[in-house]
Amino acid sequence: MFVILVYDTAVERNPKVLKTCRKYLHWTQRSVFQGELSAAQYRALTTALRTVIDADHDSIVTYVVRSPDLVETATLGVDLGGPGDIL
Amino acid sequence: MFVILVYDTAVERNPKVLKTCRKYLHWTQRSVFQGELSAAQYRALTTALRTVIDADHDSIVTYVVRSPDLVETATLGVDLGGPGDIL
Repeated sequence: MFVILVYDTAVERNPKVLKTCRKYLHWTQRSVFQGELSAAQYRALTTALRTVIDADHDSIVTYVVRSPDLVETATLGVDLGGPGDIL
Repeated sequence: MFVILVYDTAVERNPKVLKTCRKYLHWTQRSVFQGELSAAQYRALTTALRTVIDADHDSIVTYVVRSPDLVETATLGVDLGGPGDIL
């Protein structure tokens, strides 16, 4: 499945959030990751993130679609994620 | 169609980017908007954004899926967008 993850977490927890996201996804842009994951990998990612964030203050939203073929991605301006992350 | 928009733009252009995005989409989280748009609305949004950003420095990525039914949204921690923006 294809996962887009956006995070809005406190500065002091960002390094751990970034490190966890980087294990599973590609960095797209400031506070955005994306990538293809199995259901098991997605569960592992969200489980790991729950241990890292403060659920009363931080926010992480994931958008999951069955296949990357269902998503059209477009970039206006600079492509920060680099060619490796273009769908 | 369902649109997720993430922006990484210079601070001085953020107000115009935000104002343009708010015309068409709901704010989800820091630098993230989402919503349902017609193809015409999507074109109008991206055309307006192109006039606002500096294409050499700013970056806006849109993810478009045919229907919101194809997207599963999950929130870890705080739901910043408010109940009106939950799918």
